[in-house]
Amino acid sequence: MTVEAHEVIARRSREIDAELARTLPTDGVPEQLRAPMEYAIFSGGKRLRPIMMLEMCAGLGGDERQALPFACALEMVHTYSLIHDDLPCMDNDDYRRGKPTVHRVFGEALAVLAGDALLTHAFWIVASARATERLRVEVAQELARASGPAGMVGGQVLDMQLSPDRDGDFVLTTHRMKTAAMFSAAVRIGALVAGANEAVLGLVSRFGDMFGLCYQIRDDLLDFTKARERFNYARAVGANEARSMLREFCDTAYGLLRVIPMNESFFLKLMEELFGGYD
Amino acid sequence: MTVEAHEVIARRSREIDAELARTLPTDGVPEQLRAPMEYAIFSGGKRLRPIMMLEMCAGLGGDERQALPFACALEMVHTYSLIHDDLPCMDNDDYRRGKPTVHRVFGEALAVLAGDALLTHAFWIVASARATERLRVEVAQELARASGPAGMVGGQVLDMQLSPDRDGDFVLTTHRMKTAAMFSAAVRIGALVAGANEAVLGLVSRFGDMFGLCYQIRDDLLDFTKARERFNYARAVGANEARSMLREFCDTAYGLLRVIPMNESFFLKLMEELFGGYD
Repeated sequence: MTVEAHEVIARRSREIDAELARTLPTDGVPEQLRAPMEYAIFSGGKRLRPIMMLEMCAGLGGDERQALPFACALEMVHTYSLIHDDLPCMDNDDYRRGKPTVHRVFGEALAVLAGDALLTHAFWIVASARATERLRVEVAQELARASGPAGMVGGQVLDMQLSPDRDGDFVLTTHRMKTAAMFSAAVRIGALVAGANEAVLGLVSRFGDMFGLCYQIRDDLLDFTKARERFNYARAVGANEARSMLREFCDTAYGLLRVIPMNESFFLKLMEELFGGYD
Repeated sequence: MTVEAHEVIARRSREIDAELARTLPTDGVPEQLRAPMEYAIFSGGKRLRPIMMLEMCAGLGGDERQALPFACALEMVHTYSLIHDDLPCMDNDDYRRGKPTVHRVFGEALAVLAGDALLTHAFWIVASARATERLRVEVAQELARASGPAGMVGGQVLDMQLSPDRDGDFVLTTHRMKTAAMFSAAVRIGALVAGANEAVLGLVSRFGDMFGLCYQIRDDLLDFTKARERFNYARAVGANEARSMLREFCDTAYGLLRVIPMNESFFLKLMEELFGGYD
C-alpha cells in the first residue's frame, strides 16, 4: 500500500476505535456481558468496512464525522457476525486473528449473547445518532437489509451448504449475500450521509457489490493457494477462472469509480493494494 | 378470563398472525432460513406483548392499525430471544409449548441464524413502517433499548448467574431487565403511536414495568408450586413474600391504570385473569 493509503487507514482506524470505545454501552450493562462485547470489538479488526463508509462520504463531499456513529454501528454488526460464525455449531473456530475466539474465552452462551447485544446496540446507535430522522431511518433500513435474512444472515445459511457439487454461480450468490451486501451498505450509507441522489446511490451500490466480490474471491484464492480444505469459488471454477473473474469484477469496480462524481483516490489506492497482484 | 377479554385476545391474535405472515421476509431469503423463522413465529405464542401494544394504543385513543407493524417487530424480537434461550449452550430446552424447539428440528446453526434474522428483520420492519420518520426512530430506540445489553440480553446474562446465594433484589433486577423491559416497551410503543406526552409515557413505562414483574413472579410461583429446581424469586424470598410482593406490584399497576387517561378496561380484565388468584 502506498504510504498515503496506509496513513488514511491508520488515522481512520484511530477515529473509529475512539468512537467505538465511546459508543459501546455501559449504563446498566452487566460487566459479564460488556467484557465479551469489548473483547470482540477490540481484537484487531482492520475496520475496512467503516473506513470505506467514511471515505465514500468524504469522497462525495459529505461530512464524514456525521457518518462516524453509523460506521461504528456497521462494525458492531460485522463483529457480531464473526462471533456467531465462529461458534462450535457453525465454523467451530478456536482462533481469529491469532486470538482465542469469544466462545473460547467466555463460553458459548456469552458468545451468543454478546453477538445479540452488539447487533441490537448497533440499531440503538443508528436510531439515536445526531442526524435527521430521515437519515437515521434510511441508515437503519440499509443496515437491516444488508445484514438480514436476504443479506448477510441468508448468505451464511448458503455458506453452510457449500459443497463440491455446487457450481460457481451458487458460490457467487453466497459471496454476494454474505460479504458484498455489507460492503455495499458501507459505501451506500457513506453516500446517504453525503446526500447523494438515487443515480449516484445506484452506482455506489454496484461498486460496493463488485468490491465485495473481489474481496471474497481474493480470499478464496489465498485459501486455495494454502490448500485448505474449504470449498470456495476457486475450487468451484478453478484458480485461473477465479483470477479472471476477479480481474473482471475489479475492472467493473474501477469503471464505476470513474463515473461516480467523487474524489476516488483512496479507493484507487485501496484496490491497488488489495487486488493489484491479480492484474 | 371474562368472555370479553378472551374475545379481544382471540381477535387481536388473528390480526397479529395475519400481519406476521405478511411481514416475514420472503424475497431473496433462502428457504432453509425461512423455514425455522416461520416455525418459531407460528408455534403457539400467546402474542401477549403485541396485544398489549395494540390495546394501549387503542385505549389512549390512537389508531392501533398504525401500531400493527411495530407489534410484529416486537413479537419477532421476543421470538428470537426464545430461540436463543432454548439453545443447548443456554437453557438446553427440547420443548417449548409442547413442540420441539427450533434447534431440535433444524439444528443449532440454523437456530442461531433464524434468531439473528428475526432480530435484524424486526428493525427493518420498524424502519420501513408506514409512519412518520420521527415515530419510526422513536420505536427503533425503544425496541433496541428494551431488548439490548441493558435490557433483555443483559437480563439473560444475569439469569445465567441465578443461584441460591443470590438475594431477592438480584432476582428482581434480573426480571426487570429480562422480562419487564419488553412489556414496558410494548405499552410505551403503543402510547407513542397514540401520540402520548412525556407525562403519560412515564406512567405507561411504570405500568409496563410493574406488569412485567407481576408476570414473572407469577411464573416463579407456579414453578415453585411444581417444585422445579430452578432458582427464582419465590425460592429467594419464600412463597409468602413473593405472593405479597406480587400483590404490591399489582396494586401499583392498578393505581397507574387509574391515573393514565385511557380506557383501561382490557388491562383490568387481563390483570384479573392473570393475577387475580393472588388477591
